[in-house]
Amino acid sequence: MAAFDFALLKQLRAEGSASRSEDLLAGIITAILLVPQGMAYAMLAGLPPEMGLYASIVPPAVYALFGSSRALAVGPVAVAALMVANALTQHYSGEDQSAVFAGAMILAAETGLILVLLGVLRLGALVSFISHPVLSGFTTGAAILIITSQLKHLSGIGLERGDALTTVAAFLQRLDESHTPTLLFGIGAIVLLMLARKPLTTLLTSAGLSQRVATITGRTVPLVIVIGATVIAALTKADSYGLSVVGDIPAGLPVPSLGFFNAEGWAALLPSAVLIALVGYVESVSVAKVLAARRRQKINANQELTALGFSNIAAAIAGAMPVAGGFSRSVVNFEAGARTQLAAIVTAFLVAIVALFFTGWFYFLPDAILAGIIVVAVTQLIDIAGARAIWRYDRADGAALITTAMAVLILGIESGLVIGIVLSLALYLWRTSQPHMAVLGQVPGTGHFRNVNRHIVDTLPRALIVRVDENLYFANAGAVEDYLMRHINARPEINAVVLLMSAVSYIDASALEMLEHLEQDLRASGITMHLAEVKGPVMDRLRRTSFGQELAADRIHLSAKSAWDTLTN
Amino acid sequence: MAAFDFALLKQLRAEGSASRSEDLLAGIITAILLVPQGMAYAMLAGLPPEMGLYASIVPPAVYALFGSSRALAVGPVAVAALMVANALTQHYSGEDQSAVFAGAMILAAETGLILVLLGVLRLGALVSFISHPVLSGFTTGAAILIITSQLKHLSGIGLERGDALTTVAAFLQRLDESHTPTLLFGIGAIVLLMLARKPLTTLLTSAGLSQRVATITGRTVPLVIVIGATVIAALTKADSYGLSVVGDIPAGLPVPSLGFFNAEGWAALLPSAVLIALVGYVESVSVAKVLAARRRQKINANQELTALGFSNIAAAIAGAMPVAGGFSRSVVNFEAGARTQLAAIVTAFLVAIVALFFTGWFYFLPDAILAGIIVVAVTQLIDIAGARAIWRYDRADGAALITTAMAVLILGIESGLVIGIVLSLALYLWRTSQPHMAVLGQVPGTGHFRNVNRHIVDTLPRALIVRVDENLYFANAGAVEDYLMRHINARPEINAVVLLMSAVSYIDASALEMLEHLEQDLRASGITMHLAEVKGPVMDRLRRTSFGQELAADRIHLSAKSAWDTLTN
Repeated sequence: MAAFDFALLKQLRAEGSASRSEDLLAGIITAILLVPQGMAYAMLAGLPPEMGLYASIVPPAVYALFGSSRALAVGPVAVAALMVANALTQHYSGEDQSAVFAGAMILAAETGLILVLLGVLRLGALVSFISHPVLSGFTTGAAILIITSQLKHLSGIGLERGDALTTVAAFLQRLDESHTPTLLFGIGAIVLLMLARKPLTTLLTSAGLSQRVATITGRTVPLVIVIGATVIAALTKADSYGLSVVGDIPAGLPVPSLGFFNAEGWAALLPSAVLIALVGYVESVSVAKVLAARRRQKINANQELTALGFSNIAAAIAGAMPVAGGFSRSVVNFEAGARTQLAAIVTAFLVAIVALFFTGWFYFLPDAILAGIIVVAVTQLIDIAGARAIWRYDRADGAALITTAMAVLILGIESGLVIGIVLSLALYLWRTSQPHMAVLGQVPGTGHFRNVNRHIVDTLPRALIVRVDENLYFANAGAVEDYLMRHINARPEINAVVLLMSAVSYIDASALEMLEHLEQDLRASGITMHLAEVKGPVMDRLRRTSFGQELAADRIHLSAKSAWDTLTN
Repeated sequence: MAAFDFALLKQLRAEGSASRSEDLLAGIITAILLVPQGMAYAMLAGLPPEMGLYASIVPPAVYALFGSSRALAVGPVAVAALMVANALTQHYSGEDQSAVFAGAMILAAETGLILVLLGVLRLGALVSFISHPVLSGFTTGAAILIITSQLKHLSGIGLERGDALTTVAAFLQRLDESHTPTLLFGIGAIVLLMLARKPLTTLLTSAGLSQRVATITGRTVPLVIVIGATVIAALTKADSYGLSVVGDIPAGLPVPSLGFFNAEGWAALLPSAVLIALVGYVESVSVAKVLAARRRQKINANQELTALGFSNIAAAIAGAMPVAGGFSRSVVNFEAGARTQLAAIVTAFLVAIVALFFTGWFYFLPDAILAGIIVVAVTQLIDIAGARAIWRYDRADGAALITTAMAVLILGIESGLVIGIVLSLALYLWRTSQPHMAVLGQVPGTGHFRNVNRHIVDTLPRALIVRVDENLYFANAGAVEDYLMRHINARPEINAVVLLMSAVSYIDASALEMLEHLEQDLRASGITMHLAEVKGPVMDRLRRTSFGQELAADRIHLSAKSAWDTLTN
């Protein structure tokens, strides 16, 4: 493979050996975070804990070889885990567990194949059709949905899966059924994890520790809580008072298998896999870009598609769940000092050690602790301040954000995302179908033309000069025609109309037809149509039409000023 | 109803009494066309002939009272009839006939209610999202589909309903089963109807008749064929040799009934009704606009929605099928001299006379004749020249047209229309996601800025001046950022970037975020970002953001020239 060079090797050469110890430390910190997170997200996906651990071993190692981000921490992520849970319960209700687990691998395989396909076709730009407000509303809605989905693990109440409102209502109605020990573990974990953030770091730094050491100490808190809670549950014999615990996790490394290839569900799961692929890719690339920018590095979108695709295919083969680059985990990795994907290799190695030798230790780990970890992790995804800023800047974008979040909560995660995307595109199309137009006049003696309603300008008594601030295409051709006819009818003395095309970079066939008919109608009424400031590419195409050729003779002007001069002579 | 004035009365006052005789003649001509057409389109819709006659009586009379077009001839139309047939066979397979007939009335009622609702909400602009190429491809595909659907009536072969290719293949395979008398009637009708157009008019004018009389004579040919064929079939005892004929048509006028209100299928038929409403409205308004423009009259889109809506509701109450303004029929009405909707009242009256007294006369009318009338009528909808012109002007529009036509033929009329609409919107969005951008320089000594690749211009050694020819929104924010970064990275000496915003009339929240991040990143590299020629509405919104306020201080310039001057000082 002379022409081929693993991304990791390039990164190591670029950073030099001085970065190795930083990568080692970052890898350890990320592994400490990832072991409980991997198990927790598997639980969120309705899968056994080892599928989360396996997803934290092979996929990050594969990403390390191919990815263009140096700090992205690939593995199970909360939102994708919820989407997996959703897809699996939809398609495998009542079936035995092994079919469900095979379904998770099918999802990983399909997600991977879709991403590789998009990478090969260089279609990474497709994800740009998910707007920031939609993504923000989706993430916020998903985070709330995830929190409500964990109420059963935090309270011990046997709640059914359902939309957020139904779950919360059922939870409140059945509050008296809650299991006190479960509640204590769950709420305890949440409180300690919250304290482990800002408050602990502040405390430790004021006690004299460096900022770095304080932050790193904070990162170990989840593992400390996991170990502490497990020890308490084991000592108090959790089973005896009905505390739900993780139980047996088979020890060992993932064994490659292609058995899922023959399992049922490839067609049924495909739509879900498309959405998981999109969401996973968008989350990964967003954080990869943010982190790369901080060190003036670059992310290659198509390389990311391929690398994340390979990771997911590897996840499927390793018997794991779909993966992506986690937002908060990548930030932790970066801030712990990760300079290259060597950190990911270290993380994968350490998680493998845990999977091989220490799974028995987690027998008494309470589910409520994992639920607490999930809740605290996804709380960071809720961005109220960002939502308010978007609302202030643009009501339509704000409405798209709120609608997406509400749709996720009420109609579910997949419908919510699709509704958000469709709505944002519809809003954009609707806006372009109602173009801004302005009647212009000349700023006295300048040759500049401005809106007659905003500026003091000269106008010609028998000419109408109009600027169209939008491409001319089928959805706005009618509106443009109506606007022109309204202004022409209001001034019967007009004998010339000038369209200023400086903001028009495209005229489609429908709009061309409108212009042709309008020109004919106006001509029949003794009014001539002129164009000015037609852009190069637009002019190139107009020249191919008889309409364009006819106008080009003497009615297409380089500037508004020259149209003005022609009409005044 | 003092504030209310029927549209027809206004038209009559405007035209004066001189127009009455013209309206009378036009009404007669249109009725001669409409009687066989009404029965034929009912057959196309899979409904009994009287439902087509009833649709030709009440709905045009109702439209006459409310519509804004003076020449639009409302009644059954071919494409809507096919859509009705499609919806009914989808939802009522195996049910008894009366349920199917009630389904047609439900479709008419729903179509009417949707149109009235759109009119009340002033949402007529919604139909502008159907582009001309999509409509043209749809109509052409539908016309071919209609022709194939009539092969069974023309040949007497018992073909199943199906997509165009399957039907044609089955027809060719079973050609030896064709029934010779049926073929003779069918092909005879088609040939005579074809000759009745151009050839007959040419012959009659060259024989000394005026153009007008020749044309009007041509218009009577369908009725002559109908009468002639019926007489031949009756004399030869059509039943005895297996010729399929219309049979009994109950005599009488439509009896108002709201029975369909309680029938099954309202929810199931709604999607079909939406499409029938859209297609019917678009066809009606297109022809109404064309005809109005010829006499310098105007069409009110919202009034049309309401008037067509009332017509369809009336159709449902009269026990008829959905209606619209027919293209060729309206042209006939117009060319026969219709000045007001009085012509439509005359037509409705004459069709009512037929329904009341003459339905028995059509017992022996062969189905093959009606099929021939349908085939010749829809052949006019196939517009190959228009398709070629669109393809030459714009490949994307041409592709949308061809795809829509093919989808109608292969996947059916509803799927084809939806695919066409979605495709045309997707193509537009894709185009705006790949905006045209240009690096600019100053045309020496002019203050005008032009593309460095198209013009000889001066550039500044340390500044990059870029014009973005598209609104900035989520789908192209990434592409714009990539373009800028590529050009900045290619010229490391740059310390200023000027974005010329003359073609940007909208920046959404996603694009704003991109600009903010880009500005921060550039600033960190010692590059300042400037904006120039920011439009009023865009500037109003930018001022609400800290980003905009910061730039507004000294980095937002009125013109590219003033940005240039600032950077050179």
